[in-house]
Order: sequence, then structure tokens, then C-alpha cells
Amino acid sequence: MTDKLTAALLVIGNEILSGRTQDTNTPWIAGKLNLRGIRLIEVRVVPDVEECIVEAVNELRSRAAYLFTTGGIGPTHDDITTESIAKAFGVGAIVNEEARLALLNHYRNEADLTPARMKMAHIPDGATLIPNPVSGAPGFQIGNVYVMAGVPRIMQAMLDHILPELEKGHPILSNTVTCDLPESVVAEGLTAIQNKYDSVEIGSYPHFRMGELGLSVVLRSTENNQLHEATQDVVSLIDKVGGKAFAVSVQSNPS
Amino acid sequence: MTDKLTAALLVIGNEILSGRTQDTNTPWIAGKLNLRGIRLIEVRVVPDVEECIVEAVNELRSRAAYLFTTGGIGPTHDDITTESIAKAFGVGAIVNEEARLALLNHYRNEADLTPARMKMAHIPDGATLIPNPVSGAPGFQIGNVYVMAGVPRIMQAMLDHILPELEKGHPILSNTVTCDLPESVVAEGLTAIQNKYDSVEIGSYPHFRMGELGLSVVLRSTENNQLHEATQDVVSLIDKVGGKAFAVSVQSNPS
Repeated sequence: MTDKLTAALLVIGNEILSGRTQDTNTPWIAGKLNLRGIRLIEVRVVPDVEECIVEAVNELRSRAAYLFTTGGIGPTHDDITTESIAKAFGVGAIVNEEARLALLNHYRNEADLTPARMKMAHIPDGATLIPNPVSGAPGFQIGNVYVMAGVPRIMQAMLDHILPELEKGHPILSNTVTCDLPESVVAEGLTAIQNKYDSVEIGSYPHFRMGELGLSVVLRSTENNQLHEATQDVVSLIDKVGGKAFAVSVQSNPS
Repeated sequence: MTDKLTAALLVIGNEILSGRTQDTNTPWIAGKLNLRGIRLIEVRVVPDVEECIVEAVNELRSRAAYLFTTGGIGPTHDDITTESIAKAFGVGAIVNEEARLALLNHYRNEADLTPARMKMAHIPDGATLIPNPVSGAPGFQIGNVYVMAGVPRIMQAMLDHILPELEKGHPILSNTVTCDLPESVVAEGLTAIQNKYDSVEIGSYPHFRMGELGLSVVLRSTENNQLHEATQDVVSLIDKVGGKAFAVSVQSNPS
């Protein structure tokens, strides 16, 4: 186990950049990685343009222990992730017999394996498949890069398959303290608490709910004792400056 | 007016990378930019770490006509965007008298301008302020970089202020054709249509709704006639291969 396990996420798709589609995959993937003790350190969204994908893949796969990608592995002209990943690794995208059989199993007849569908049987040379229990067409892993579908239901099934294979870090524990103060009132005290606890990452997030200003202080750590003490300090701080810490939620993280 | 107006977005904040917060600013900003004829070409999410912010700012501001950032301009220890942007531009972050007056106007008394709040009056030397009608603390513009708050309500007010100042491109028009076919059935025909219309960007997005597979074909262009013809071709294609184009929504874009 190590604390240094990191991941990056590359979201591939014009539909996110155009604003048409809200990307909900990022928080899902981040949450699952937390539980595995892997820290998401960067997310990039790039268009369906080969040179953009190749550049981002090569930068991010060298920067993090794992790189996940979502989107662009379907049968249409705008699905260019597979060829782009192959190019990033300097290999060809060739018919993968296992992928062809997975598609055959899904579509039932050889005659239904049209050229468009056979596109999804092309996989970078040397890659390992990630099964797709929803619609047949697999994802794949090559090096430290895991290539998944963009449709959330399919991505989630693929991620469930991948997670047990990843190295396991200390789960990242998280507490949230919510109060009704503006953050400027607790800022000085929070700085002191942050300086006291090296292993705890403290974030301060103001919000408006039903017209009321509020604040969530989020504490994250792999060290349970430090996290607990720092959380108590935050509750005391809020009390001291006249606020009311009206919720302390403790996320439990199965290890 | 030009078709080459591009923007990048840098989302700054551990809360997005931890999965705690769903970033809803990206689709909002993308949609507003579409109407202005500005194309979002990349989004990055980075943590509250100075070197990560500086590197991303310098890469993205040279890559796109405009760079927008969200998050990290509040009063707490984890708000390091302002200093990081100053560093990226090689200038200092100094007390800006206009920003101090905006804070004074919001908090009313000099005595309430605590060190934590005065942090928000520090602005990179040479930057222009972006007013914050919600909570006083301003954003700012330096070079082609627009630095906004992360709280959606504040970001939206800041963006409304910025938009009229930006160069104006041809609005990006968009049509969506939805049908009940798997995308592999229309893939070949869509490729032919894409090849026929240079100025139209065609995306194919499968989805599951209430357990049913469906498909949205999204067509985007600044050329209304080409967009209309390509949309008709897609509707005809779906009809030809036995599907039912059960919705054609036309986004209208005020110019």
C-alpha cells in the first residue's frame, strides 16, 4: 500500500465542450478511486480531434500512475479514441479476436457484424480487453491507460471490472462540517488548523442554498486519528466565533 | 467577426477532483460562449496547488483566444488562484484600491476588513476588476485570462459582465435529431453525411432512458443553410434504415 497512488482522467467528447452534456462521470470515478486509495490529480476534457487526444494521453499517462479515458469508442465517425490511443502508443489498431467474439455474442449473427460494428473490434495491438456487459463493445487497457465508454451505465460497469486490478492505497477518508458563517469569519482559524495537521487537506466551500449563505469545511486524510482531531478543532473554531456547526457528516470508507 | 474564436476553461479546486462537488459551471459557460460564437476547445481541472495552476494557465492562455478560470479567489488558505495567476504572469499580487472599496461597500466598516477579507483585495498588478454583485470580492482580467469565482451564482454574474466585452464570432447553431436506433445502424450513413458537409460538426450520442437504448445525433455549425440541409439528410437516413426520428429540436441562437 502507498499514499502516492495517483490517477488522471481524460474526457473525450465534443458534447461536453459544447455544453450539451453534463459530465457526470468525473465525480463517479473520483469517488470510486477515493475508496481504493487513489487520488485523482487532473481532469482534462478534449474534443474528438486526434492530435488533441494523442497529446493529452501522452502527457497524462506520464504524469499519473493511472490514466482513465471516457468516450469515443463507439461505431460512428466521431469515435476516434481507439485509433488515437494506438497512435499515442505507436502501435496499430487491429482486429482483436476476443473483441470480435464479444460483439458476435451480443449481435448473434456474423451477418450483423457490419463494418461499423467491426470498428469496435479494432483494438490497439497489445491491449487487454475490458468487458462491456451492457452493449458488447469492449474497452481496453494498454500500459497504464484504461479506455472506457462515455455512456455512464457502461463506464460504471467497466470501472467495476477495472478497480480490483488496480494497486490499493490507503482509503481517503473525509469529514464535512457545515455551518451558517461566511468563510471570511473562519479563514484565519482554518489556516491555523491546516498548519497544525500536515496529513489533513482542509477545503472551505461557501454556498448559497435557498438564498442563505453557508459554508462547508471538508477535511480529507488517510490518517483517521489526525482527521478526527482536525475535525474537532474545526467544530470548536466555529463555536468560538459564534457559529453553529449544524452538521458533521462522516463518510465511511470500506478498505 | 471570425469563426476562429476559441476559449479554454481552467477549473481550480480539490472539491471537483475529490468527487465532492459536481462541476456545473462548464456547461453553463460553454452554452454562453456558443451564443457569442466562441468555441470551448479544452477544459482542465487542477488541484489547489500553485505549480499546477501556473503550468495550466500558461499552457492554456497561449492555446486559446480566451482563458476562463473558476474557483480559488476567496479568503481562505486554500484560495491560491490570485497569487498563482500573478506568478504565471510574472507580476505581484498587490492591494487594489478599487477592490478594497468594493469590499468596504459590501462589509460596510473599515474594522470589518480583516486580514482574511483584505486577501480578496489583492489583485495581480495590471489586472482589471470583474465586479461581484453577490458577495463583493471581485474577479479580474489580466491579458486574455478571466478569473472568476467558483460559486455558480457568482460566476454567472461575473460572466454576464464579461461576455459583452469579448470579441463576437458567428453564433454556433445546433440541431438535435433523436431516434430509437442503435448508433451502429446509422454509422455508415452518418459518415457519408459528415463527409458531405464540411462546415457541420456531427456527433452521435447513444443513451439509455428508462432501460431503452436511444440515440441523439447533434449537428453544429455557424452556417444555417448547411446545418438545415445536413439535418434533413439525417432525418432521411433514419427513415431509410427503418427508424423513427421522434424529435427534431432546433436551438435558436440570438446573434
